[in-house]
Amino acid sequence: MYTLYGYPKTRSVRVAWALEEIGLPYEYKVVNLKAGEHLNSAFKTLNPATKIPVLVTEQGALSESGAIVTFLAEKHAMEEFIPASGTFERGLYEQMMIFAVSELEQPLWSKAKHTFALPEQHRIPQMQNTAAWEFDRALTAFSLLLNDKEYVCGSLFTMADIVTAQVLSWAKGSELDLKFDNVKSYAERVLSRSAYEKAWRNEVAHLAKADA
Amino acid sequence: MYTLYGYPKTRSVRVAWALEEIGLPYEYKVVNLKAGEHLNSAFKTLNPATKIPVLVTEQGALSESGAIVTFLAEKHAMEEFIPASGTFERGLYEQMMIFAVSELEQPLWSKAKHTFALPEQHRIPQMQNTAAWEFDRALTAFSLLLNDKEYVCGSLFTMADIVTAQVLSWAKGSELDLKFDNVKSYAERVLSRSAYEKAWRNEVAHLAKADA
Repeated sequence: MYTLYGYPKTRSVRVAWALEEIGLPYEYKVVNLKAGEHLNSAFKTLNPATKIPVLVTEQGALSESGAIVTFLAEKHAMEEFIPASGTFERGLYEQMMIFAVSELEQPLWSKAKHTFALPEQHRIPQMQNTAAWEFDRALTAFSLLLNDKEYVCGSLFTMADIVTAQVLSWAKGSELDLKFDNVKSYAERVLSRSAYEKAWRNEVAHLAKADA
Repeated sequence: MYTLYGYPKTRSVRVAWALEEIGLPYEYKVVNLKAGEHLNSAFKTLNPATKIPVLVTEQGALSESGAIVTFLAEKHAMEEFIPASGTFERGLYEQMMIFAVSELEQPLWSKAKHTFALPEQHRIPQMQNTAAWEFDRALTAFSLLLNDKEYVCGSLFTMADIVTAQVLSWAKGSELDLKFDNVKSYAERVLSRSAYEKAWRNEVAHLAKADA
């Protein structure tokens, strides 16, 4: 059985969501970010980059949410959740996954880093404006890339939608408008899946139990 | 035949390098960034995110260098350049690819954005220090992730090494020290491959011809 290290309202929900979609059982361990547990040497052994999520498999630990969800789909989901290897659609899947984590997410991560995640001496207040401008530019590109497609790879719901929609939900949480009708209805469509609600409720429940 | 849209000393060399490693013929088209050709409407149709590289395939255009090289390896390289689908090593490949583009590269891209790539009113001079600090942190994590391995996935040279080593070469170009012995010898090992030299020489030659 897999063990997922995570914390509510972070990137770990992407992996929990993927596990729920596939229907895989998993053990969930809270890494209390507020207590700095991600900086402990035990956690550093799992991920030297000191970031959640980490998925512990029988063969070792994997980090980077976009990689973990792809790994899970390839290993367990047969022909669901990821286009077949070697096809153009699979190329598009990889493109949209990297676009999500490197273009769409980075401005949101910048906003968070310069609010609380960086050591105080490295935070720059003006980055809030620059990051908002960068998000707007990435969102415009995303709206054009999505076009009138149901999901980022077309009619197939994939793991790239999990990562993309979670980034869009993060944007709404950062009070950034999704602006484009196709993006708004896409976010609604993907974020209304029951596996997503199950995943985040489970993370919240585990934190409450750990805090009790 | 593939058409690669690129410009010397940018991320497009990763795709040219991958094509050279596999031994695929390709047409190379210079997108003159200095003349703003990446902002033309014709190029925007290929990639709404207005970034090179773009690889035009028979079925459409693909962007995001990390995605394109994975697509090429899956489609053409049989069991070379990428671990088999569904294995732990493949998960590691995806992890290291995303680590390269989202952790290791982003601080370098930040430095470039706040030097020339962003519109002037969005550039923040203090970002140079923060980005250097972030690169140092990502490099430390990379050194631990690499450990004593020959390549990022172990003994197999993969497309993730192309992206990672190109990022390290970019760092050296930005006068950032690679600091760790294992990282330095890894960069040397990967960047000394003849396909890399062939790729960047070809890009430079095409620009010279376009400029003539």
